[in-house]
Order: sequence, then structure tokens, then C-alpha cells
Amino acid sequence: MWRPDRASDRPLYQQIATNIEQRISLGEMPPGSPLPSERKLAQQLGVNRSTVMQAYEMLRASGLIESLTGSGTRVCRDREGSAPRQTPNWSRYVESGTLQPNLPLMRRIREGLQSGVPFINFAGGELAPDLSPNDAIADIMTSHPFREPLGYGNPQGYVPLRVALASFLLEQRGIAATDESILVTSGSQQSLYLLTQCLLNPGDAIAIENPSYAYSLAMFHSAGIRLFGLPVDDEGVHPDGIRSLHKQHRVRMVLLNPNYQNPTGTVMSAERRIEVLACCEELGIPIVEDDPFSLTAFGEQPPPPLKSLDRNGTVLYIGSLSKIAASGLRIGWMVAPHTVIRRLADARQQMDFGLSIFPQWIAARLLDSTSFLPHIEQLRIALRDRRDVMASALRRMLPGEISFELPQGGLNLWCRIHGEVNDYALLENGIRNGVVFVPGSVYGAEHGYVRLSYARPPMEEIEMGIDKFAQALYKSLRT
Amino acid sequence: MWRPDRASDRPLYQQIATNIEQRISLGEMPPGSPLPSERKLAQQLGVNRSTVMQAYEMLRASGLIESLTGSGTRVCRDREGSAPRQTPNWSRYVESGTLQPNLPLMRRIREGLQSGVPFINFAGGELAPDLSPNDAIADIMTSHPFREPLGYGNPQGYVPLRVALASFLLEQRGIAATDESILVTSGSQQSLYLLTQCLLNPGDAIAIENPSYAYSLAMFHSAGIRLFGLPVDDEGVHPDGIRSLHKQHRVRMVLLNPNYQNPTGTVMSAERRIEVLACCEELGIPIVEDDPFSLTAFGEQPPPPLKSLDRNGTVLYIGSLSKIAASGLRIGWMVAPHTVIRRLADARQQMDFGLSIFPQWIAARLLDSTSFLPHIEQLRIALRDRRDVMASALRRMLPGEISFELPQGGLNLWCRIHGEVNDYALLENGIRNGVVFVPGSVYGAEHGYVRLSYARPPMEEIEMGIDKFAQALYKSLRT
Ligand SMILES: Cc1ncc(COP(=O)(O)O)c(C=O)c1O
Ligand SMILES: Cc1ncc(COP(=O)(O)O)c(C=O)c1O
Repeated sequence: MWRPDRASDRPLYQQIATNIEQRISLGEMPPGSPLPSERKLAQQLGVNRSTVMQAYEMLRASGLIESLTGSGTRVCRDREGSAPRQTPNWSRYVESGTLQPNLPLMRRIREGLQSGVPFINFAGGELAPDLSPNDAIADIMTSHPFREPLGYGNPQGYVPLRVALASFLLEQRGIAATDESILVTSGSQQSLYLLTQCLLNPGDAIAIENPSYAYSLAMFHSAGIRLFGLPVDDEGVHPDGIRSLHKQHRVRMVLLNPNYQNPTGTVMSAERRIEVLACCEELGIPIVEDDPFSLTAFGEQPPPPLKSLDRNGTVLYIGSLSKIAASGLRIGWMVAPHTVIRRLADARQQMDFGLSIFPQWIAARLLDSTSFLPHIEQLRIALRDRRDVMASALRRMLPGEISFELPQGGLNLWCRIHGEVNDYALLENGIRNGVVFVPGSVYGAEHGYVRLSYARPPMEEIEMGIDKFAQALYKSLRT
Repeated sequence: MWRPDRASDRPLYQQIATNIEQRISLGEMPPGSPLPSERKLAQQLGVNRSTVMQAYEMLRASGLIESLTGSGTRVCRDREGSAPRQTPNWSRYVESGTLQPNLPLMRRIREGLQSGVPFINFAGGELAPDLSPNDAIADIMTSHPFREPLGYGNPQGYVPLRVALASFLLEQRGIAATDESILVTSGSQQSLYLLTQCLLNPGDAIAIENPSYAYSLAMFHSAGIRLFGLPVDDEGVHPDGIRSLHKQHRVRMVLLNPNYQNPTGTVMSAERRIEVLACCEELGIPIVEDDPFSLTAFGEQPPPPLKSLDRNGTVLYIGSLSKIAASGLRIGWMVAPHTVIRRLADARQQMDFGLSIFPQWIAARLLDSTSFLPHIEQLRIALRDRRDVMASALRRMLPGEISFELPQGGLNLWCRIHGEVNDYALLENGIRNGVVFVPGSVYGAEHGYVRLSYARPPMEEIEMGIDKFAQALYKSLRT
């Protein structure tokens, strides 16, 4: 919320009046809308009531607001004595549109984080500032002079980045792609959005793991896609699950996150990958392999990606630099048959006319730099250490209340809570205690699960955060 | 098209075999699909027929393709003797989705430009490489060490950029915005996309200038928006046009491009701005003011933007660095009531999770740099010179065949062709002659108009390009 600047030379009452004037002229406070009482506004802004009185007096004098005895102060209806005016009914407009608002729980988390109060953040699915290759990136920017053309770029992505990705994918994941079969997107998110908007129709059914990150994505809802959950065991989803869903609902696409699945941390076994691929090949159903975490393996490497086994063009493979370098780069990619790539590259121009050259240029140099693989090595160790700190704090502070499997990669620890707890209440208690996390129902799980990310908060806050979480949990269990 | 690399150490036939193998495994060539005859492929690739024979032999040996007497060579149906496989029917998938493909004419232009043949490009709505502030940008990158957090950014945009934009808009356009009322987007394009996806419903009617850039945008079509053209005279659109459209169709939004309108170059007069704003205020219809060109004025400044006159929150103002700095930055913005900004910032996360920090960081420094306004001064002069070269070449080479008004800013010259001409034929003749431009029907005009951009090609090619255009036009008029 806006507050007057006490360090400024301008008197507080003038600052307040200007702020209200701006809000009126921005349509935030349409004609006729009530202003808060002087007492209330004074309280909100932390100023004396007389300061607010002065501000209101100034606005009345300029004819912007009027105070009517008994009915408080409001924005004047007809401020210039000219033709009648109507502010567009913005609150109706913002309820329109096909893009649905985000899930209330997700918005609540963001609101909490943006309130300005310091929080220990176990909710963000991103790396702490010290885990990103900050120096390498700063170095790329200062040491290579930038000499690329600055016009509208290739809608499929900057060619040197696609070339760098092709070798990176071959070396690191055994995926044989050419630059022609790669589309560069604003993170994996935009790859998923484009798929949804270009390859699926409203009403189409897609099969996803249950629970799944995909449940948290309003974009499927916006596109009218029906999501059906597949049961998951230790080895991931089973072909039988896909077959039976397909029989019932005619599945148009299977979306999998085989490595360190978000939120559960599950790794799909090598066998299941082969079986699921064979099943989808037989049924002619495309698989979307969403694979942002594979390079974060703490120990053993995960099995080869489904895409590396795909001889048939069945798998659309999605990757990202978000979880191994920096989510603020907004660099992701899709490897897919050319027909698909061309369709998506054409359509993405409607959304944003293609990606900025700058993050693409930086990403290409980052992938090619000799420091990138060592960075990933360090990242793995750092993430494992964080996981261990979080796990031991949880075991110490909540020995009987929760249980979890130790994730072998990725950013998240998935906890089951023993005992009954309401997700909303737990989150509110957390926010009150200065800690945020994501309740499992966001991912389609029953109440009683939480996703705790050990990647985001500073290492030294993890224990304290678990302490705050434990208190919130105790409070929620008791009520 | 792919071609073998003659400089490589690998034999040509091996390169060809590998390329085909990749295309098969990418699903580009599903099981059963025919390969070109040896003779034809040899021709396409510019190699000896025996080289292709060797490549095919290699692929046959590895069981990937089979040659059947009388029916040519095809990809093997069941390559591993295992369960039957189906490639997903990608050609059906790519016909799905709500994002419609771009207009055929626009795709034809892009195809022409991407064919590898050198073209004189009068089609691109962007600056020539030497018109962008290349040195200033390279300098920003090398001289300020980058030290920003690299996590997911604020979905509304990087705060220092919003602060820089607020002062820029106040100083340059008289628009009083705060950082809170600004949303940073991937060019104006993404602002328009978000509006369409978040504030309008399928079936809604919007009023636009006729002709208009908006007609070229598949995104309105994708969202099921009905576009209605407003007649335009020398001073722009008239309130009567809006009133009568509103009576017939209940207009939900008016989209205007008041300065150096794309494609016509028209500037809306100061009076009309006031009248149109008053009319929309009375009717409660929001105005979208799309204003990418205002700072390119060759002489006199255009009248103040509608947004600077708006006391009511009626106008959503959209701007961009694309036409005054670099379209490859992909930095645009919207100034709007907070309710609108919040709705759009929330929804944009579904598309791309927000913009990359890098172009935002660069744009903030560019706006704050002392060289930016001098750059714009130079740009104005350079664009005016280009306009003059183009105009005099047109007058010399097509004295009786075309007519145009001299634009007073912007990137485009709008020509009316005297005599009957078919847009498609004209474009094809142009492409054959090595010149591209945008036929007017793309913008909703009748056949017989073209938009020629003087901003994109190198200055020294403009005359030659007009010569090629003139030849194409003569050919199209005669047939
Ligand atoms: C499984 C999965 N896919 C996709 C994404 C999107 O990330 P980005 O767009 O930053 O690549 C995330 C982020 O949390 C994720 O966990
Ligand atoms: C009138 C108008 N609006 C918007 C755009 C979109 O440009 P950008 O997204 O690069 O800002 C253009 C580009 O040609 C334009 O001419």
C-alpha cells in the first residue's frame, strides 16, 4: 500500500491529496465512490487525523471530492460541469476474458509475500539468489560486446541458442535434436501454454500424474481442458492407468514430469518409461515430458528421458534454465516434430512477437561457457545440503506429525501430515507466523499435504522456518 | 532447407543418412511415409545421385527404410519388430487450438524473407540495424555490472523500469502515471493480447480504424472478437462513427492508433481526441490508445495523447520501445487503472511467468541514459530522410500509377495504386523480383493499396527496392 514519504520536503497532506487525485484520474476511484473516513485513513497511513483533514480540504477545494453531511465524502460525480461521464465498468471488464485468474491459494501466497513483511519462503519453486550463476552471467554481459541485430527475432528462437541447446541436450540427456526441432520459449511455462492453446481444443482430456504441478496451473482451466489424474506409485505412472483413462475419456495427451516430480519428488523408473512410451505409441497419444529438474540429481543420475527413447515423434520434450540457472532468465525450450514447432512458432507471435534477444544471447553463452557444468555440480551439492538441513529440522521438530521421502533431486520436499488439518487454515497460520509454503491441495492432493521448497530461502533461515512451520502446524492441528 | 556441409570431414552420404534418421526419429517422417526418389533428392541437395544411393543403402541396412520395387522407398512401418506403433497424428493436432494461424499473406511474406534469397524488405515494421541505439545498449551491458536478483520477477514488471517509464511518460507525453499503474509487457503486442484475453469475451465487438494494423492481428480472431471498422478522415475517426457502431453492435472497446497510424500515417487532430474521449466517457466505453510512433515526429509534435486528457480512467494507454529503440528488446507497457493492471499481471503468469529481467534492466538504463533523447532526435532525422528518398523514388518511377500523402512520422508510407491490381498477384510478383511489402488488404483495405516501410531496408537499397516494386506493379497491372 502507498504511504506518504516522511523524508520528502512536500508536506504530508499534499502528498496524500496528490495520491488520491492520481487514483481518481486513473479510474481507481470512479465518480461517486466513497472515500474512507478521515479517522480511518489517518490510521491506515499512520498520520494525524488533521493531516487527512487538510488533504480532503485541498481536494474539496479543487472540486474533486465532496462531503455531504451524513453520507461521508465521495468523489464528485460531475467534475467539470460538462457532459455526463461514466468510468468504464472496470470491475465487470476484469471478470471477462478467457484467461482465468490464478488459484485463490496461489494468489494468497503471493499476496502474503508481497505484503512487505519479511517471510521465510518455502513456497517459491526457484533458486535462492546465491545458487544462480550470478558471476558467470555478469561476466558474459561485460566481457563479450553485444553485436546482435536488434530487430524482431526469429519466432522459433535465436539460432545460436538453439544450436547450443542441441549439443547440451545430446550431451546431458542423450536427446538427438537439431536446431530446427527446438522452440525457445519464456520458460517451460510458455511451452505448456502454447501446447494448450495450439494443439488442444476446449473439452479435450489430458492425463497427468496425481498430484501434479499441472493442477496448480490456471492455464488448463482457461483453455477448457479436462485434467484427469493418473495414480502414481514408487516408479511413477503405470500404462494401465493410461489405458483405462483413455477408454473412458479419449485422452488427447499425457503430461508427465518424470524426474523429481513436482510436488512429490518421484522419479519414474527406466522400465516404466519404456512401458509408458510403448503404450502411448500403441494408442497414438502424444506424451509431454516436462523435465526441468533432471540435472539436479543429488546422487545417481535419473534414467534416460522418454524423448531419448522416442523413435516415433511421440514425445514433446520441455526443458528450462529456471531450476538449474535462473528463473529470471525466462528461458525454456521444447523439442518436437517440425510440424508442431512451426505451428507453435507461428502462433506465439500473437502473444509476444517472440522472445527478447537479450536473455537468449546470455543463455547461449552460458550453455557454451566452461563454467556451466561446474556450476551445476555445485548447485547439486548445495541443494542436497539444503534438503538435509530441512529434513533434519523436520525430523527434530515434528517427529510424529509428518512423514516424507527424502527427494533425490529437485527443489521440493513433499510432506504428509498425520492428523486432520485444513489447508487454508494451515496456510493462514503460516502467514501469521511469517512462513509460507504450498498446501498440497493446490496440486490436486487431499488436504493434509504440503510442499516445502528448500531451494528458495537463505540456507541459514531453513531451520527457523521449519520452527515457524511447526508452530503453525500445531495450531492448525489443535483447532 | 538443410544441406550437407561440404566443409565437414564427414562424407556427404553419411551426413544425408544422419539427417534423414533424425527426421524419422523426430516424427517428421512417420512410418510408411515415402522418401523422395534418389534423383529428386540429389537435385534438391545439389549432390550426385550416387551419394544419395549410398545414403539410402546405409539407412536400409540399419532397417530404417525399405525400398519396394515399383513403389519407391519408404520409412519402415515396424522398425523394431515390437508392438504396433502409431505416430500421433500431428497434422490433426496442429489444426486444433484456440490460437489461430497467422494470415496467409503474412505467412507468405515471412516465408519469402526466410527463403535465404536476399530481399529488399519494405514489409518489416521495424528499424534498420543502424537506427537502433546499438552502442548505448552495448555500453549499458558492459559498463554497469549486473547485480539483480535472478528469481521469478514481479509479474507487473521490474520496478526500476516502471519508475523510469513513469517519468519518461510524464516528460515526453504529459501522462501522469505511477509505477503502480504501469504493466511491462513483451512489446505492445503482449499488452494487446492480454487485453483481448482478460477483458473481452468471445463475441464482443470492438471498434477500430479502417484500415488498421489491428486487422492484421490473428489474435482478435483467435479470441473470437468481432472487429468493426470506423471510417477515418484527415483528422482521424469521428465520434458519430463510434455512436452509430455502438447503437448497432454494443461496442465494448475502441482501439485507436492516433499518431502516424499504421498503416495510413494519419494523425488524429487535437479536437477529435477531445470529442472522441468525451463520447466514450459518455457511453462508458474504454479506449485503447496504441501509441508506438508518437516520438518519431518528423516536424511538429502530434497533439497530446488521449491518456493525458483522461480524468476518468477511460483510456488504456499502450507504448513500446520497438519503434524508437529496438523491437528485439521486446519491451512495451500499458498504463491503466489498477484493477486492470492487477488482473492482467495475474493472468500473464499463465502465459510466460513474467518477462525476463535482462531486457527490463537494459530498458530502464536506456531510458535513464543521457544519450536516449539525442538518439531519438537522430532517429527522427534519419527516418525523415528515408521517407524522402522513398517518396522521390516513387514519384520518379511511378508518377501516374500511385499516390500517397507524405507521412509526418512513423515508419510507413501508404500508397494507393491507380488501376486494378490483385494483392496476391502483386505480392508474388514482388517476391519474384526480390522485394517484399505488405498489401493493404492485410489491414482491411480494399485491393489496390500497399504499405511500404522505409525504416527497415538499408538506406542505399530504398531506390533499388522501389525500382523492383515498380516492375512488379507494372507486371501486375498489365495482367
Ligand atoms: C514441473 C514444472 N514445470 C514447469 C515449470 C515452469 O517453470 P519455468 O516456466 O520457469 O521453466 C515448473 C516451475 O515450477 C515446474 O515445476
Ligand atoms: C500500431 C502498432 N501497435 C503495436 C505493434 C506491436 O509492436 P511491438 O509489440 O513490437 O511493440 C505494432 C507493430 O508493428 C504497431 O504498428
